[in-house]
This record gives sequence, C-alpha cells and structure tokens, in this order.
Amino acid sequence: MEKALNFIEENKDRFLEELFDLIRIPSISSEKEHKGDMIKAAEYWKEAILKAGADKAEIYETEGNPIVYGEKMIDPSLPTVIVYGHYDVMPVDPVDLWNTEPFEPVIKDGKIWARGADDDKGQAWMHAKAFEAMVKTDTLPCNVKFMVEGEEEIGSANLAKFCAKNKDLLSGDIILVSDTSMLGPKMPSITTGLRGLSYWEVEVTGPNRDLHSGLFGGAVANPINVLSDLIAQMVDENGHVTIPGFYDDVQEVSDKERELLNKAPFDEDVYKKAIGVKELWGEKGFTTLERTGIRCSFDVCGIWGGYTGEGAKTVLPSKAHAKISSRLVPHQDNEKIAQLFKEHFEKIAPPSVKVDVKVLHGGQPYVCPIDIPAYKAAEKAYQDVYNIQPVPVRSGGSIPIISTFETELGIKSVLMGFGLEDDAIHSPNENYPLEQFYNGMRTIPRFYKYYAELMK
Amino acid sequence: MEKALNFIEENKDRFLEELFDLIRIPSISSEKEHKGDMIKAAEYWKEAILKAGADKAEIYETEGNPIVYGEKMIDPSLPTVIVYGHYDVMPVDPVDLWNTEPFEPVIKDGKIWARGADDDKGQAWMHAKAFEAMVKTDTLPCNVKFMVEGEEEIGSANLAKFCAKNKDLLSGDIILVSDTSMLGPKMPSITTGLRGLSYWEVEVTGPNRDLHSGLFGGAVANPINVLSDLIAQMVDENGHVTIPGFYDDVQEVSDKERELLNKAPFDEDVYKKAIGVKELWGEKGFTTLERTGIRCSFDVCGIWGGYTGEGAKTVLPSKAHAKISSRLVPHQDNEKIAQLFKEHFEKIAPPSVKVDVKVLHGGQPYVCPIDIPAYKAAEKAYQDVYNIQPVPVRSGGSIPIISTFETELGIKSVLMGFGLEDDAIHSPNENYPLEQFYNGMRTIPRFYKYYAELMK
Repeated sequence: MEKALNFIEENKDRFLEELFDLIRIPSISSEKEHKGDMIKAAEYWKEAILKAGADKAEIYETEGNPIVYGEKMIDPSLPTVIVYGHYDVMPVDPVDLWNTEPFEPVIKDGKIWARGADDDKGQAWMHAKAFEAMVKTDTLPCNVKFMVEGEEEIGSANLAKFCAKNKDLLSGDIILVSDTSMLGPKMPSITTGLRGLSYWEVEVTGPNRDLHSGLFGGAVANPINVLSDLIAQMVDENGHVTIPGFYDDVQEVSDKERELLNKAPFDEDVYKKAIGVKELWGEKGFTTLERTGIRCSFDVCGIWGGYTGEGAKTVLPSKAHAKISSRLVPHQDNEKIAQLFKEHFEKIAPPSVKVDVKVLHGGQPYVCPIDIPAYKAAEKAYQDVYNIQPVPVRSGGSIPIISTFETELGIKSVLMGFGLEDDAIHSPNENYPLEQFYNGMRTIPRFYKYYAELMK
Repeated sequence: MEKALNFIEENKDRFLEELFDLIRIPSISSEKEHKGDMIKAAEYWKEAILKAGADKAEIYETEGNPIVYGEKMIDPSLPTVIVYGHYDVMPVDPVDLWNTEPFEPVIKDGKIWARGADDDKGQAWMHAKAFEAMVKTDTLPCNVKFMVEGEEEIGSANLAKFCAKNKDLLSGDIILVSDTSMLGPKMPSITTGLRGLSYWEVEVTGPNRDLHSGLFGGAVANPINVLSDLIAQMVDENGHVTIPGFYDDVQEVSDKERELLNKAPFDEDVYKKAIGVKELWGEKGFTTLERTGIRCSFDVCGIWGGYTGEGAKTVLPSKAHAKISSRLVPHQDNEKIAQLFKEHFEKIAPPSVKVDVKVLHGGQPYVCPIDIPAYKAAEKAYQDVYNIQPVPVRSGGSIPIISTFETELGIKSVLMGFGLEDDAIHSPNENYPLEQFYNGMRTIPRFYKYYAELMK
C-alpha cells in the first residue's frame, strides 16, 4: 500500500490537471443543450478507466445519458468493489453570483472553484486515480468495477433500468461511493443514512389569458394568490406537513438513537452564521440535526408566474407554477408520497382554478448498518489518514440510486464522502479543498486493503 | 358638425394609416431600452397636433418621458376642453402568446391587432383626428388643449409634477379622456368611477446563498414557502384583505346605489366563458360588478424565486420576490394603504427571514358626478351615434392621473371610453375594433357641440 500512496504523491499534480479537463466539460444533465457534453464526459471517463489499467471499459447507451462501465477482475476469490460516481452536474444559475467561470476551474485559497469540483467530478475522480495507483504499483487487493452515470442530478432513472437489466455484470460485494460530506476538515464522518426525495411541478391556471388587474381584480381568482395559498396550507404552524398519510410510514427513531445523533458536534451559532440567518426554522419538537437527518421536509425549489420584469405591470395572470420537493425518511415510499401530494393538492384547490401536478422524479431513503465489513474498513481508513475515528451521520441529502442498488442488486453502499459543508454544491461558487482531494486519494487504497482483510 | 363628420368619413383610411405608424413605435414605458421610442412617439404626437391645426405644440422634457402639450385657443369666452391621452404602452410579454407581431398592426376580423391598438394609442388618436376634422372644416366650438404623456402605465409621476407646475397653462373647464371601455359594442357606457392603485414589490431573503435542499431542507426557512405563507395571510377565507386599517376609509355604498349598479347588463355565464373559468371568486357579500366597481382587490401580479428552468433542481433558494397590487376605492389613500401594507408585511414576517418592501407606484380613486354639463354632453353624443342612452358605470381599472387632475388643477374628467372588454389590453393580442375607432371619431365632435351649448 505504501507504493500506491507514493504513486499518488508523485502524480498528484497530473491527477489535478486531468480533473480540470473533466470539469471543463459543462455536463449539466437537466439542460438539453448539453447533450453533447454528456457524451464527451462519458468518453473522458471511459478513457481514464482504461488508461488507469482496467481490463475493459465500455459506454452503455441509455434512453438518456450514457453509463460508463469498466472492470478489473484480478481473482474471483477476492471481494469485488463497485465504485459508483456521476459525471453530470447541476445547472449554474444564478450565474452572476459566481466569482469565477463555473466551468473553468481555478485554485484559490487552497480550493478548487468550479461546478462539479466536489459534486461529483472531484470526489469520483479520487477513485479513478486511487485505482490507477493501486494497479500501477501492483497493490490492488480486490476486484474493481466502475459504474459512472450522467443522470444523478435528475434522478438516475436510466441507471436504475441498467441495474435491473445487468444484474450479473454488476455482481459484487459492496458499492463504494464518494458523493457526500464529512462533518469538518478534521472531523471525518461516514454517511449512514440518506433521505429519499419526491419532486413535483405544479401548474395553477386561472383565466384563459392574462387579465387587466383593474378590470377583473377582486372578481376573478388570481392563480398566484391561489398557488401561494395552496403552498401555505401544505405545512402547518408546527412545521408539520399536512398531507393526509404523509407521516404514516415514517420510522420513529428511538430516544436512544436520537440522543446519539445529537452527540455529533454541531454549533448552532456557527451554522446560522455560515448561512446568514438570524433564526432557524423547522418541525417543532426536533433539533436541527434531527430535522435534516430523520425527519422529512417540504420545500418550494422554484416559483414563477405573471410579470417578473422591470417596473410595475398591473396584471392578473393566467398561470402560476412551482417546483416543489419533499425529502423523505425511512420507510416513506417516494411514489406513494407523490400520489398523496397530488391527490391532496388537487383536492384542496378551489373550483375557481385548474391545477396540474407532474411528478418529475423521486428516490427512496437509505440506511447503512455500521457493523458490516465495508463500514468497518472505511472507519479504519479514515482513522489512519485523519487520526480520529469517523462518526456515523445521517445526511439530509438524497442519492436516490443508492436505495435502488440495494433493491435491484442486493448490494449495500458505503458512503465515504470527503466534501465539506462550505463546498456550496448545487450553488454558485462550488468548491472543493485540495487537501480533501488528496486525503481522499490517500484514504481509498487503505479502504481496499482493510476491506480485503476483513472479507477473508 | 356635418362638415366635420364628412371630413372624418373621407379621411378615415388616412387616419388609420397614421395610427399604424404611431403603433409601430414600441413605446413601452416600463422598459428602459425603449427610451428612444418614447421620444419618437412624443415627436409623432407633436407633429400630428400641429398638422391638425393647433396654434402651437411643444414637447416638455421631464425627469422621465416627455409630455406633449398643444393648444388651439379660438375665443377666450368659449369653454376650454383639455384632451388627455398617453403614448406609452404596456410590455408585450409573454410574447410567444401573440398571434401577430405586437408592434406591426394588422387588420383581421374587423379589428386592429397590436399593442396599443386600444390602450391608448387607438383611443387617443380619435381625439387628434376629430380635432383635425373640426379645425379643417371650421366647426370647432371650444378651445382645445392637448396633454399627451408617456408614463401612464407606470404611474404618471412626471405628469403629476407637470400639472403642479403649470396650473395656468393647463387651465380649462373639463378634461376629456378616452382610455376606458364601454359595456358592449351596442351598449355604450361612461365610466364614472375609477379605482385607485397601490403597487409594491417585496423581497424575502432566507439564507445568504442557494442551499442544497437535502442538506438543509427542513431546518432552514425557505423564502418561497415563507413568501407564499405571507401572501396567503393577506386575504382571509371571505376574500377580505386582513391588513389592519385597510378598509377604514372605504366608502360604504348605499343599498340604493348598489341596486342601480347591479342593473347594468351583466351575464355571469358569458363573463365566465369569456375568460375561461368555471367559478368566479371574490369578497363574500358582493356581486361581481360590486367586487370590481366599489370594492378593493389584492392581486399578486408576478412572483419569482429559486429554480425556474427545465427539469428538477433541488435547491433551497436564498430569495423570493413578488409584485403585488391593490386596487382601491373612494376614499382609500394609496400612500396610506402602501404604508399599512408595508408595516403589516414586515410585522408578520417570521424572524427566520428578512423582508424588504418597495412601493413602485400608486394613484387615488376617482368619481365623476353624472349631473355636470360634460357628462350630459357625452351622454347625448353617444346617444346620437349608438341610438341608445349610455349608462354610467364604475370601472375596476385605475387611471391614477385622473384624480391628480382634480386635486392639482381642480378640473373634473369625463371618461368617454370606446374600448371593449375583449380588447385584451395589457395582454397578448390586444385589439381594437375598427367600428369603435370610427364611432369614437363620430362621437367626439358631437360632444364638443353639446358641451359648448350646455356651457353657454
């Protein structure tokens, strides 16, 4: 393993340059005009896996963006690690809030600044390069399969189908993922829970055209007022979602577990200051860590309607729209929740408007036990690099495909994240500290070593 | 007067061509890039008034768009009519809903289709041309002053200042305006009431940047959810505005007046069908005519925040915005109402967000008595052309400057509108029936004749 670590040390500048080239491909999966960039990013990954020393690497076409699959099978008696990552990134708007070009990475203050620097180009690239180091130094102790997709940010629908169709190809012992964060730069943690997600778009239609707000105002229902009212009704004064049946399948976490959960280091003042709010808000009866870790949410991600230009246009608009998402916890089922939302939204809409609800995507929640070999191996690997035992945490985020891996392939995932809270993933000025990038590459070969030993 | 009417008949094609040239100038007052077009439109009006036979016509610069003033003083002993109109128009978005180019007028189905065809280029132009007809045929029975501005759609702030500064220049007996509608093509009506207006823009700020809705969702107040909630709280389940003091100055209209008001022809089914809604909505205890005529409104004219692009971006946004307007009735004061709104909005906003309220513009409500000579002259003029006595109606719309004329100049306005409800002013596919354009020009010289007689 020392050899692999030395290889990483000697080649780390090149690894960074290669990552920059990947980042420069603006592979935004939710915007159709970037279709060509998705293909470029997939090709880049395929070549990288091959050059790193894989036996083979292929691009699998899907109805959406291609999936890159590659493997190095050294010995059927050894455990097989499936590395999962994604080459797609989030949109960059509002683009005027970026301090640098989103797709032209720069190093400043010891960090890489660019869309995808962390999520997930930076984090996934550590696996490509750690793999290369182990292969080139002949120290790889496991079989490795790579599975890199281009639709994580839009729900991984085609990777789910790919898994269902290719169960033999994707046989393995553990799925290894770096697409989450640690508690702090000196505070490693392993994500053991992910929230599920259900994401909807609603349209409220009032009159058949924009009306003069003077001639009609007060006599015709305004779709923006109605939409606002419907949104307001969805969450009560205690922060509870009011959709009937919404909490039916929520796993009530025991007092003991909640106590453990709240032992994770968390400074509310620092947290509030970092995001610039005077007061936090959430479901009554739960702490901030609980609200994001073990409780569901109801957030409007976007809203639009009527006149949004300069000045004052007096209009009673025809339509109003919103994009709404709910984060789910075990054992809420995203499809059931979507159905409950749709029914409730349609039911409480007044007869003065028409409403339309589209389900855009969804994913199931996930929990990883802390007594499996992969978790223990990850724990030891972090301990070696950071000199402190990582703690298990439940993240508020969602990686819908992780629960799909479990249901379709029967394989658990271990989430070795190296991101930090300040990385601004999904926001302007996304960044990834160089130290985390390098430490990630130093941690991964250790994971392989300990995992192979524990699986003997 | 026959001579003037014949002149109109003989020249009506030219009048239409001239109107088209005016319409082709995209004089949108709320969009800064059209500054040059405002000047062009003002110049066009100045030349038109001069060519029509005015003694003089001048352009008065303001801090905003210029004001065109022109006059023909034939005899100080005769009454003076001040014609008011505006050359500015509303924005054209959503532009994809237009069937033709907004600024390239076309004739189809007997109507002129273009932005400004009715409001107010088409309607104001009738006055320029009726004036020309009377001058050229030597039948003008009154002194005439023209006052044409370019900021009606954004609140007429500079015309109000102009009036305050030029009281002598603007002395006169009545202000004549065509910027309203009649009840139907065979159902003339004269607008005797206008609602006031207060228009605000609000900004709700949550976190200092867009956050990941998974990592933070449920623990940090979402500004769109909060804004929706604040909007929802502004109107109760009875359609009453909940702002404390909002109704304090509202003139309660007597049962007798309400009875008269409700005698105006109004078919609720036709109304609903025309705007494509299944059910109407408004303040409980009032009819549709009352809701727009004698009661105030609270409409969100526009709303925006978060991710509004294609697909699903999971974001807890930093900011949410809305443009909100309230139509006011006598004797609500728009500045007082704006202050009440601002205070209430700031007061009920939760401590988890910051809010900012800007007052964009406002205007006072107006009422015209039906026993003044100008009203009676207008009544007779309509009767001659439409063979039916016009009815007085209270419009839900606002022309803020009309109440300013009364307070600053001490002059009442008579609102001889020729628009129709289907003209889609402020909407895509604005139009103006040719018949109304021609009938307007046939009615105006009759007004001058009867007015001069009644003022003797």
